[in-house]
Amino acid sequence: LGPDEIAPPPPVVHYRMNNVTTSSTPIENRETILILTPLARFYDSYWENLCKLTYPHDLISLGFIIPKGREGNLATQQLQDRIQKTQHPSNKDRFASITILRQDTEPIIPQAEHDRHALVVQKERRAAMSRARNSLLFTTLGPTTSWVLWLDSDIVETPPSLLQDLASHNKPIIVPNCFQRYYNKEEEEWSTRPYDFNSWQDSPTAQGLAEQMGPDEILLEGYAEMATYRSLMAYMADTTADPRAEVDLDGVGGTALLVKAEVHRDGAMFPPFPFYHLIETEGFAKMASRLGWRSFGLPNYFVYHYNE
Amino acid sequence: LGPDEIAPPPPVVHYRMNNVTTSSTPIENRETILILTPLARFYDSYWENLCKLTYPHDLISLGFIIPKGREGNLATQQLQDRIQKTQHPSNKDRFASITILRQDTEPIIPQAEHDRHALVVQKERRAAMSRARNSLLFTTLGPTTSWVLWLDSDIVETPPSLLQDLASHNKPIIVPNCFQRYYNKEEEEWSTRPYDFNSWQDSPTAQGLAEQMGPDEILLEGYAEMATYRSLMAYMADTTADPRAEVDLDGVGGTALLVKAEVHRDGAMFPPFPFYHLIETEGFAKMASRLGWRSFGLPNYFVYHYNE
Ligand SMILES: Nc1nc2c(ncn2[C@@H]2O[C@H](COP(=O)(O)OP(=O)(O)O)[C@@H](O)[C@H]2O)c(=O)[nH]1
Ligand SMILES: Nc1nc2c(ncn2[C@@H]2O[C@H](COP(=O)(O)OP(=O)(O)O)[C@@H](O)[C@H]2O)c(=O)[nH]1
Ligand SMILES: [Mn+2]
Ligand SMILES: [Mn+2]
Repeated sequence: LGPDEIAPPPPVVHYRMNNVTTSSTPIENRETILILTPLARFYDSYWENLCKLTYPHDLISLGFIIPKGREGNLATQQLQDRIQKTQHPSNKDRFASITILRQDTEPIIPQAEHDRHALVVQKERRAAMSRARNSLLFTTLGPTTSWVLWLDSDIVETPPSLLQDLASHNKPIIVPNCFQRYYNKEEEEWSTRPYDFNSWQDSPTAQGLAEQMGPDEILLEGYAEMATYRSLMAYMADTTADPRAEVDLDGVGGTALLVKAEVHRDGAMFPPFPFYHLIETEGFAKMASRLGWRSFGLPNYFVYHYNE
Repeated sequence: LGPDEIAPPPPVVHYRMNNVTTSSTPIENRETILILTPLARFYDSYWENLCKLTYPHDLISLGFIIPKGREGNLATQQLQDRIQKTQHPSNKDRFASITILRQDTEPIIPQAEHDRHALVVQKERRAAMSRARNSLLFTTLGPTTSWVLWLDSDIVETPPSLLQDLASHNKPIIVPNCFQRYYNKEEEEWSTRPYDFNSWQDSPTAQGLAEQMGPDEILLEGYAEMATYRSLMAYMADTTADPRAEVDLDGVGGTALLVKAEVHRDGAMFPPFPFYHLIETEGFAKMASRLGWRSFGLPNYFVYHYNE
């Protein structure tokens, strides 16, 4: 088979879904994990971190979705260069399989950090991200997948035991705290600061705002013009406290997010439309809760976002 | 590979999604179709009708989801007996691949026709059906699937050109009219009558009912205690008129239902929870419309439901 050829599917395959477990000891149970990454830009440090994960790589499949266009072409090329080495048959530590989807749409939104976060463009941008995540999920989730790890392409540092650590909590949906390393010029030293504000506990203020909204309006976190007074996991971090401490969450971010495949199979996806005035990963947590699955966060367990 | 073994996935596969077309001439474009069937009972006439479909079988994959328990075991056995013959390597007309999922849950609801339709059990029953449909969809939809045909296991008669006929309309979502053959004792002759009432155009009355409902209540069609005054496709049928006539729909039934795979990939699934006070296939049409995809019906084009 050449690199662009597709293996013929087996003629008849029979799967018993109660054999697909999700447990706190996933390695012992040989549970398979699908790592899904929407990829607009490729970062070497993302790939290096991925390769250092200590979960058995023969139980890990990778899926990427990459937009059309010049930037997407570059990211695809960089990804394929790294894959070629990592997946070489001589590498005992290669992953079970890799799927790359190329979208037929270009990213509509500018990629510079300040543009990206402007309130006006966020809705359209996050709707497009939702569709990308759904396409990736619907086409790569298989009958034998136990867990799905959503991992953004700019997550450049996690504990190598990320998968075991998150799975050990045995929760339907669990999210670490996503921070960013930066150089503090005043203190003249490297430090860390919160990056992802999409993991939160709901507040009466936010619920009141939602009630007064039109059916197509959405709540977004981190905008002064729409103060929600939600409890943000970003601000619950305590580097000296137990990294295994759990909190209940009503909204989750998707930079790193472990989900039992069963939650997705039940129908939980990333709403590109306002769902209870929420979209994308925050809407996903709400949809999962409507399906009976709760979300949890680890305020003292950290992953790190690239600093551009 | 034995019948219960899984082929090793290809190490790296690259899919360009703009190569996966959906057109009015799907055979010429070699478009693949995934036929998905939630299966509680097996009917020989369903299988025979399926085998008679004239769309090239090497472009058709089949997926089944079967509940746990005694009835499910029987249905699985009957299905596998038929598969063994149809998929025999000597049969040039075999399907591309077949996936069978066994649920880890039993059907919670009685299966007799009168029980099945009682208003009180419908909500729970259709929520369970939604989860089954979602599990089947999320695990079988692949990156190269162009179309998904939902086909109930008790659809025992369709035109052999069903797939070409439906696809030729080139609509995101299209549904034929599902009728039932019965013996009219008064007239002493065989006749037909409407079976599926889930394909409809919305009405101000139904919208008004929905507005007054609590967040977890649902609208259901065909109950005197909740007259919706929707325009039902079942009653638009005219056997003497153009079978290609199309109508716009706001709700669709799932006994036979052709969907562009792109619609599902965008995130359209079968809500097991009330979504705009709709669930399952009717909620699916609403969700698809929130994603920008419209539904159509063919009032004068018929498929037939088993008559028990
Ligand atoms: N497929 C796809 N991925 C995208 C697109 N835009 C961003 N991404 C990826 O989606 C993830 C989140 O996007 P990013 O711009 O980092 O969001 P932020 O960190 O929340 O500001 C990253 O992995 C990006 O590489 C897009 O249009 N299509
Ligand atoms: N997997 C699964 N399929 C089911 C279950 N109940 C019914 N079905 C199948 O789902 C479809 C619709 O169910 P059916 O009872 O015929 O519904 P009705 O015709 O609308 O009354 C048929 O193909 C059934 O065989 C279930 O609990 N699990
Ligand atoms: Mn990012
Ligand atoms: Mn039926």
